[in-house]
Amino acid sequence: MAERAALEELVKLQGERVRGLKQQKASAELIEEEVAKLLKLKAQLGPDESKQKFVLKTPKGTRDYSPRQMAVREKVFDVIIRCFKRHGAEVIDTPVFELKETLTGKYGEDSKLIYDLKDQGGELLSLRYDLTVPFARYLAMNKLNNIKRYHIAKVYRRDNPAMTRGRYREFYQCVNDRRILDGMFAICGVPDSKFRTICSSVDKLDKMSWEEVKNEMVGEKGLAPEVADRIGDYVQQHGGVSLVEQLLQDPKLSQNKQALEGLRDLKLLFEYLALFGIDDKISFDLSLARGLDYYTGVIYEAVLLQTPAQAGEEPLGVGSVAAGGRYDGLVGMFDPKGRKVPCVGLSIGVERIFSIVEQRLEVLEEKVRTTETQVLVASAQKKLLEERLKLVSELWDAGIKAELLYKKNPKLLNQLQYCEEAGIPLVAIIGEQELKDGVIKLRSVTSREEVDVRRGDLVEEIKRRTGQPLCIC
Amino acid sequence: MAERAALEELVKLQGERVRGLKQQKASAELIEEEVAKLLKLKAQLGPDESKQKFVLKTPKGTRDYSPRQMAVREKVFDVIIRCFKRHGAEVIDTPVFELKETLTGKYGEDSKLIYDLKDQGGELLSLRYDLTVPFARYLAMNKLNNIKRYHIAKVYRRDNPAMTRGRYREFYQCVNDRRILDGMFAICGVPDSKFRTICSSVDKLDKMSWEEVKNEMVGEKGLAPEVADRIGDYVQQHGGVSLVEQLLQDPKLSQNKQALEGLRDLKLLFEYLALFGIDDKISFDLSLARGLDYYTGVIYEAVLLQTPAQAGEEPLGVGSVAAGGRYDGLVGMFDPKGRKVPCVGLSIGVERIFSIVEQRLEVLEEKVRTTETQVLVASAQKKLLEERLKLVSELWDAGIKAELLYKKNPKLLNQLQYCEEAGIPLVAIIGEQELKDGVIKLRSVTSREEVDVRRGDLVEEIKRRTGQPLCIC
Repeated sequence: MAERAALEELVKLQGERVRGLKQQKASAELIEEEVAKLLKLKAQLGPDESKQKFVLKTPKGTRDYSPRQMAVREKVFDVIIRCFKRHGAEVIDTPVFELKETLTGKYGEDSKLIYDLKDQGGELLSLRYDLTVPFARYLAMNKLNNIKRYHIAKVYRRDNPAMTRGRYREFYQCVNDRRILDGMFAICGVPDSKFRTICSSVDKLDKMSWEEVKNEMVGEKGLAPEVADRIGDYVQQHGGVSLVEQLLQDPKLSQNKQALEGLRDLKLLFEYLALFGIDDKISFDLSLARGLDYYTGVIYEAVLLQTPAQAGEEPLGVGSVAAGGRYDGLVGMFDPKGRKVPCVGLSIGVERIFSIVEQRLEVLEEKVRTTETQVLVASAQKKLLEERLKLVSELWDAGIKAELLYKKNPKLLNQLQYCEEAGIPLVAIIGEQELKDGVIKLRSVTSREEVDVRRGDLVEEIKRRTGQPLCIC
Repeated sequence: MAERAALEELVKLQGERVRGLKQQKASAELIEEEVAKLLKLKAQLGPDESKQKFVLKTPKGTRDYSPRQMAVREKVFDVIIRCFKRHGAEVIDTPVFELKETLTGKYGEDSKLIYDLKDQGGELLSLRYDLTVPFARYLAMNKLNNIKRYHIAKVYRRDNPAMTRGRYREFYQCVNDRRILDGMFAICGVPDSKFRTICSSVDKLDKMSWEEVKNEMVGEKGLAPEVADRIGDYVQQHGGVSLVEQLLQDPKLSQNKQALEGLRDLKLLFEYLALFGIDDKISFDLSLARGLDYYTGVIYEAVLLQTPAQAGEEPLGVGSVAAGGRYDGLVGMFDPKGRKVPCVGLSIGVERIFSIVEQRLEVLEEKVRTTETQVLVASAQKKLLEERLKLVSELWDAGIKAELLYKKNPKLLNQLQYCEEAGIPLVAIIGEQELKDGVIKLRSVTSREEVDVRRGDLVEEIKRRTGQPLCIC
């Protein structure tokens, strides 16, 4: 199989090289000959036998969502969306794939993780890698300068996501500014050409010790040890607005124009945070760097810490659940005239939040309803399928969420059991006698109490019992 | 460019053929030689110049959704989701791509419209073509026999969608059964091998006249003219339950086991439709065939008719907005032991529904709100940014949807204009005097009335005025 893969790699390579040709008829004929040659070779080698076993699975790195998981997902989204709406945000959507060139040159080293679509004729396409670049493309295309939007959608990365399912107990939010980082690198003596790669090293301080990061800077990236030490003095600091004020007094850093701008903006940010009453919740962290190239100013992250396995261990950062920053240059990359549109935003990593909520539900052994059904239409005797269909249809027409079992003559016990399992609170039971009397027996699943309700009153009674408002108030 | 495309096509072909080879070292060396040859050729021809212009667009066949379009989309989804929930459905989700082999052999001729992902190492993947095949895969993987689910997601087809934006006025729902079609083909004398292709021709009767369809059957597909005529006698019929009963008496059709089963099930279906009071809304249409291979029983469609451009013209079917059927064999294709799980379902083509709703809103010149903001926090004088931030923060904390303009000292007129444009009903105005008096001026945007409200009463007053329930009742 390794040989086969190597061969395929070569052929792929060949295909890609040829794509670069500006070709005339002669070349086309040349290729045609080679195709004929290869077809002959194929005929000699017999049919492809690689697809013998059928594997029933989702692609690596993806998962299905069961109804239970979707119920959790919907609750999480509901909280997030309500927050966005509370702040007056609009919602947009963009296609799941973009022209390949739209994504080119936006992600730095991460570009190798982009999923490309196969060239099947027509445009070259890639699956979106984040929602930021498509948003910048959208702004440029629609010449928008002013929008507060949210966008809920999946993004695709050719990653091997290591889903740590630890116990997340701690949570912190931190902020920094790219201009402070760049200013700091400059005054510490980092050559301009190494700003980005040293920034990447700093970004690892949430997972590695300073000693390890320093080794990488000096050993792998060729930084002078004394330069690394100067960086170390800065990036190991974190605090609140008082640290911002202290650094504004730092004789070297405050002389750097970029750093000064960054520090002044952070000071203003902390003033606003104080007005919102949340300044004590956010830490100014000089080691926060963020991976992506396109940030130009403030950057921030909300991080979960894993509870230490053993007392005395340092809590381990298991990654951010939300992160973002200011990217003032990205829209300009799409604008034919390079017009800049300043932007600031954040992404929420809902997958990690789902798994935390799921975990908690497991621990609490909480039951999650996957439907909202208010009442099951049931019968105690046989031959009442038609009557059940008529009643359930009446309830649906009145806006009641109702179900019935599809069997012709289900046992009452089975119908009641179904309610217990699905968390349906009420049962509307039809019987011969009830039909004659023009009533329906309404049973509460938990209390097992039964009362006869006149058919004309059933809808109101169900609404009253299930807390559905009778009017919009 | 055409030559270049042809060349690329050939190289692609070549690559695909080679993928089929079971190869040893010798072949790998052969390819290596050819790669070298082609690289030399490339060097002679100079660099690739095709990517000079940057085009700012979404991929062909895709679109962005603006906040206004999303507001429409959310309303349409809300109606659909409420219907599913009323009937006790659960929701699931699956990945946007599947293993290529999961989709293989499920769509017949349509397979050529599947988007494949580029082979970047690892698994071969394709974007989902519908939600039915991933659902069948999900059922088989999770060994489920019993679920009523809905799934809202995009599907991907390498189509050139002709988005007819006509005026849709008429709407009909029709039903047929694959077994009736197969039985009919058999008794009309269609050879078994031609069932599927003749079925495809019948499927075109919504867009073509019977004469054209007959020509296709006889001319292109080699059917005897008298066989085509016999089919014509059947497929031009449509009606209600009485047509079902009439065909149950048809001496030939009722002798065919398959057709008989189909007709009996349709009769039962119409009985249930009568119980739901909707039997007059659904037509039994012998020309309904549906494109996909996997249907095994009842099939149905909801179709929009375009209002004729000229009086007297026949209304033209502009495609279905919902369609589906029974597919009892599909899950078995994924089950290692071939266990069958009978399924029935439908897809709703929400894109077409959006465009109809959008159209109607344009005609009615209706304003669509893209946010739900209840109140704008404004100031009449300068230097009140901090006060505005404090007040908006109080409102957010109380669950009120509130905004403020981000300028330091916006003019009152601009703040009021913003409310008009965004449809925000209330303005909470802060001024020096109000701050001294401990009140906020609450202004109704439409009536322009202003009243002073004590700051402590502001939240309740906004909730009362915007119809937000004070308690959950």
